[in-house]
Amino acid sequence: MELKNYIRTIEDFPKEGISYKDITPLLLDPTACSFAVSEIIKGLEGQPIDKVVGIESRGFLLGMLIAKALDVGFVPIRKPGKLPAKTISQSYDLEYGSDTIEIHQDAIQKGEQILLHDDLLATGGTAAAACRLIETLGGEIKQVNFIIELDFLKGRQLLPKDKVKSLIHF
Amino acid sequence: MELKNYIRTIEDFPKEGISYKDITPLLLDPTACSFAVSEIIKGLEGQPIDKVVGIESRGFLLGMLIAKALDVGFVPIRKPGKLPAKTISQSYDLEYGSDTIEIHQDAIQKGEQILLHDDLLATGGTAAAACRLIETLGGEIKQVNFIIELDFLKGRQLLPKDKVKSLIHF
Repeated sequence: MELKNYIRTIEDFPKEGISYKDITPLLLDPTACSFAVSEIIKGLEGQPIDKVVGIESRGFLLGMLIAKALDVGFVPIRKPGKLPAKTISQSYDLEYGSDTIEIHQDAIQKGEQILLHDDLLATGGTAAAACRLIETLGGEIKQVNFIIELDFLKGRQLLPKDKVKSLIHF
Repeated sequence: MELKNYIRTIEDFPKEGISYKDITPLLLDPTACSFAVSEIIKGLEGQPIDKVVGIESRGFLLGMLIAKALDVGFVPIRKPGKLPAKTISQSYDLEYGSDTIEIHQDAIQKGEQILLHDDLLATGGTAAAACRLIETLGGEIKQVNFIIELDFLKGRQLLPKDKVKSLIHF
């Protein structure tokens, strides 16, 4: 199955010059979603995974399916002020300004093996901040996976390289 | 299984006087998530469902699992400016001010049977706006389901009453 066929490119979104990769055609096809999940978890059979962490909000989509496939819990990383219990937060730089993400303090226990998911790897700032949140709580990053990686933005350089897995490259 | 045990109440979040219902303990338990999904789709066996629509962002979580369980596609309803292709939008009143949600124009075809999901039914404004988006595209609402319903806010009154299903009531 050629997953690229389920990604739609929208030119000049959200602003001029950007070729936006739209995953909504993939979401419309349950067989393609299941195939994507099985590709993501391929090679992890028999390895201990304790939790899947997904980044708000598109990382929630396949993140939940991955957690189900592995029969483990799901932990959301969210934008500031969204998680109601005690959180830790991590800021990261954007092209202009900065952004922050949060995780519940009690969501991950020391030594747990974590699979981090987001839909798209661009510059890597968000995923790197998510890794720091997980490690601050004592979690160990087993894999960082994405549906799509924009290779030319070199986001992989900010992440534990041998643990990054992306299904589709542009 | 008593699903209420997987919901945590956080007092005075996001502001004083509000008892926030936190679904993150449910997300941490894959067996409880699967049970919740099976309860939601109970009674729909053999009925034609074409798509599951989930509302950003907590409606993405179980929404994707429901779509998988029914083997149908998932359609996200998102906040303004997030969906990249052509959208239609619907505004709705809040306690102070208003809010808007959007759906891709090509996400639903005329006559399709739709299951709408969000995590929580409060005043019903968001879900009612979501119903209008689906109906504007020609979709037919088969069921509107929630993990949690806050009965005292009477949000059900804004929705097609005989089609609302909530697993947990407060």
